[in-house]
Amino acid sequence: MKVVVIGGVAAGMSAAARLRRLDEKAEIVVLERGGYVSFANCGLPYHLGGVIEERADLLLHTPDSLARRFALDVRVRNEVLSVDREGQLVRVRDLADGRVYEESWDRLVLAPGARPVVPPVPGIERAHTLRDIEDLDGILAALAGGARTAVVIGGGFIGVEAAENLRHRGLATTLVEATPQVLPPLDPEMAQPVAAELRAHHVDLRLGTRAVRVLPREVELADGDRVPADLVLLAVGVRPETELAVTAGLELGPHGGIRVDGALRTSDPRILAVGDAAEKTHAHGGGTRLIPLANLANRHGRIAADTLAGRTVTAVPAQGTAIVQVFGLTAAATGRAEKELRREDRPYRTLHLHGGSHAGYYPGAAPLSLKLLFDPQSLRILGAQAVGSDGVDKRIDVLATAMAAGLPVTALADLELAYAPPYGSAKDPVNLLGYLADNLLTGTTPTVQWDAGDGGHGGHGLPVDVRTKAEHERGHLPGSVHIPLDELRDRIGELPADRPLTVYCQGGQRAHTAVRLLRNLGLDAVNLDGGWLTWSAGTAAAAA
Amino acid sequence: MKVVVIGGVAAGMSAAARLRRLDEKAEIVVLERGGYVSFANCGLPYHLGGVIEERADLLLHTPDSLARRFALDVRVRNEVLSVDREGQLVRVRDLADGRVYEESWDRLVLAPGARPVVPPVPGIERAHTLRDIEDLDGILAALAGGARTAVVIGGGFIGVEAAENLRHRGLATTLVEATPQVLPPLDPEMAQPVAAELRAHHVDLRLGTRAVRVLPREVELADGDRVPADLVLLAVGVRPETELAVTAGLELGPHGGIRVDGALRTSDPRILAVGDAAEKTHAHGGGTRLIPLANLANRHGRIAADTLAGRTVTAVPAQGTAIVQVFGLTAAATGRAEKELRREDRPYRTLHLHGGSHAGYYPGAAPLSLKLLFDPQSLRILGAQAVGSDGVDKRIDVLATAMAAGLPVTALADLELAYAPPYGSAKDPVNLLGYLADNLLTGTTPTVQWDAGDGGHGGHGLPVDVRTKAEHERGHLPGSVHIPLDELRDRIGELPADRPLTVYCQGGQRAHTAVRLLRNLGLDAVNLDGGWLTWSAGTAAAAA
Repeated sequence: MKVVVIGGVAAGMSAAARLRRLDEKAEIVVLERGGYVSFANCGLPYHLGGVIEERADLLLHTPDSLARRFALDVRVRNEVLSVDREGQLVRVRDLADGRVYEESWDRLVLAPGARPVVPPVPGIERAHTLRDIEDLDGILAALAGGARTAVVIGGGFIGVEAAENLRHRGLATTLVEATPQVLPPLDPEMAQPVAAELRAHHVDLRLGTRAVRVLPREVELADGDRVPADLVLLAVGVRPETELAVTAGLELGPHGGIRVDGALRTSDPRILAVGDAAEKTHAHGGGTRLIPLANLANRHGRIAADTLAGRTVTAVPAQGTAIVQVFGLTAAATGRAEKELRREDRPYRTLHLHGGSHAGYYPGAAPLSLKLLFDPQSLRILGAQAVGSDGVDKRIDVLATAMAAGLPVTALADLELAYAPPYGSAKDPVNLLGYLADNLLTGTTPTVQWDAGDGGHGGHGLPVDVRTKAEHERGHLPGSVHIPLDELRDRIGELPADRPLTVYCQGGQRAHTAVRLLRNLGLDAVNLDGGWLTWSAGTAAAAA
Repeated sequence: MKVVVIGGVAAGMSAAARLRRLDEKAEIVVLERGGYVSFANCGLPYHLGGVIEERADLLLHTPDSLARRFALDVRVRNEVLSVDREGQLVRVRDLADGRVYEESWDRLVLAPGARPVVPPVPGIERAHTLRDIEDLDGILAALAGGARTAVVIGGGFIGVEAAENLRHRGLATTLVEATPQVLPPLDPEMAQPVAAELRAHHVDLRLGTRAVRVLPREVELADGDRVPADLVLLAVGVRPETELAVTAGLELGPHGGIRVDGALRTSDPRILAVGDAAEKTHAHGGGTRLIPLANLANRHGRIAADTLAGRTVTAVPAQGTAIVQVFGLTAAATGRAEKELRREDRPYRTLHLHGGSHAGYYPGAAPLSLKLLFDPQSLRILGAQAVGSDGVDKRIDVLATAMAAGLPVTALADLELAYAPPYGSAKDPVNLLGYLADNLLTGTTPTVQWDAGDGGHGGHGLPVDVRTKAEHERGHLPGSVHIPLDELRDRIGELPADRPLTVYCQGGQRAHTAVRLLRNLGLDAVNLDGGWLTWSAGTAAAAA
């Protein structure tokens, strides 16, 4: 069997190496248009910032090392021009000498990846992108040439990583994002602390505006502002590389990626497609999606090799877990965001929780904010988001696992997570999400959301602040009655008995105790989910 | 309804506070023998070492603050002498003035905890224990009195934490453990790095010996040695406080704890028991166990309150997740250990994996070792262990969640864990465990264990080291043939075709590639699971 793999980074190289382990006899040719294979593309922004000091550390393998270890015929700077399905050939141009040749195949693996989206903005050809080593080298050359100012266009995960790393390099950096928030996979109230962190580190963050013109040393924005830009970095997303698939007559999916089945076969069963170019079946969503993430690329590369070797393996639906470091913060998400569920008019319930990375009495405990979305009928977790300076990755991984396993949200209360003071709390924030869900579902403590959604409460009632005097004075909901929790039993007569009450504290826990007290005494009280922290973040985000 | 809670720390106080939230009218009396309630007992060792600087930080609540917030009648230094079930009374001694009084109850919650086991060793009365604030104050007084040397008796989680913290205080510290390893919930090859870490930090570790006599400034060991001991700290385990339950005629379970049902009712349904004094139904084990862990105590306290309030809530079987910091290392475990499964003659398969805390090309990546045990029929995860300096808690939490959810071990390959270079790898170590399981179960790469167990290979074959020359020279299995992986294709003729081969590398990954190559060419090769790292750790542990 002769297998040609088009694309030699994450998905393609995973497929090639696994296939070799399964079949010593197969002839395996890897054709890579760029100059490098198996490089760490997720590490590119960090070399830009000097965090990863050595460029060589990004190059995990060379064609030579792959030939030695896996007997692969790896050809860099060899661009596939077309796929001939009838003749079972690919036409290839060797970019070193321009020679065009044909290579035959019995099976073909398409792993060409995705290319950056380039918006039709005058002057945009000056902008750099950051997808491969060549892109990186171009930016490093611009930095070496004395660039002092930068504009990053696009506030998604890559744009935010790039902005942070340009700041590490000392550049005056502007980040421009067309929507009103950074990190689109997050909901606005969860993205708000990230925006604040960027600004605290002197990134000039411009939300809700677009670059309309790239000038020689500036970028002009839709609001008329011009921001200095020795360097322009474009990170508004990627689109799948499907030219070869299209001209070969392979089917595409509804989002413009290559359509594959569970075994990663395209509409021609001799041809497989993996990585960013292929659409993925989406968990909890029905249908497919483009999910350009490295872990799925690697996983699917392996599955494609199993398929080629005659094994029966099926890709499970993808939920799309992503994480990003933003200076001292970490933000992460898995599954569906509330804005998507709302758009689809799908029933869901929301939980916000503010806890600590570990026991508060042990040094270094840091605030951690979680959001969870679940289906009120099946109780299955639909999505989760987390922001904080420590322990974010752990909680998202646990929630992603619970979600993949189909655990009901209430089962989070019972998870036995590792507890010693440096690592967690006897009641971990993930456990507390289970408690919140239980309190919500049993009607013990109804909640209302910061934007007055989904509480069935018809908007907010009279706000009752049960925090301390000092907390109240630092900021509170307009029109709040202020009664500290520990005085509530004695001062309950100060509250109107005939009005719905929206009780809040800093993060929701004290308000839960207050709501129970009030409801036990017959008052119509609900908890403002996530308390002051969520309300103030959401309100600030909505004003952006 | 009047509820008396006996014991005011984790389980008892969780029950009391939750019950108040569910029922504003209930009369709730908490009787605590000690001088403090709601203290952070998991934090005690860290105040000893000065890591938690303020003693006050350990005191999360006072009787006054609990009265204010939850309208609880909390009485410290009030010892319950007996339970009268017929009269629905408890007899109580107020330790402040010696007065004995009776308190009536409609429902009773037993949360008396556990007390340290004290072995019958002459002079042992000089030893301190570390269960409560009074114990802590006693040790602090000894330290203030000039103690320079310490012996910790017992190498379990608390003993190891205590030894570390006494070193932080500058004491010359000896740790004595009767079994041949520290941290009994771990298997020996996983505990070995912890022993090495203790010794590297100048803890004089004495394994496989016991204290036979406590002298005025020394401790005499079974091997005749005398070790200096201004301070003696006893941490050989705890046993449930069951005197009240026994004299009241309540049933005990097979391990001597109070027997409870899923709703945490004792054999008298008006009396509930929670926390370390009660036996827990054990996951995957059948039967019950004593599992003195804080997260279960808190969780069960809440469930007891729900039961008292007339709700139907059931405690799920416990799997016992535990974690400990040991200087720069973290060790953690969940579920069953191999030694238990072996003792029970239960079928299982073992996986060892050595990976990194995050992507190797990003600064700060640290080695991480994982062990997984699973049922070869159901594929369910039976237990997991992890040791490393970073990311241990995250992986154990993910594995504990997968285990609780009943995921098959092969599903670990598909978990979408958050990946960006500072946090993980595109193929997380947890994903790789799924790959290992798949390779084992499909017969792709059979393995043999370091102690030649469970591989079905009849002991070890000819050891073949496929590491580099430098690695080989630093240490290898006796009688190894050495052929670096990248030379194996060319030098395969050097291997005997008629002998079973046990291939190994440092951690198992290169050997997997080598085994596939050899098996594809018809040789009888298996992978030494966990490679040199596991074999050398296990061998060193067996020699201890």
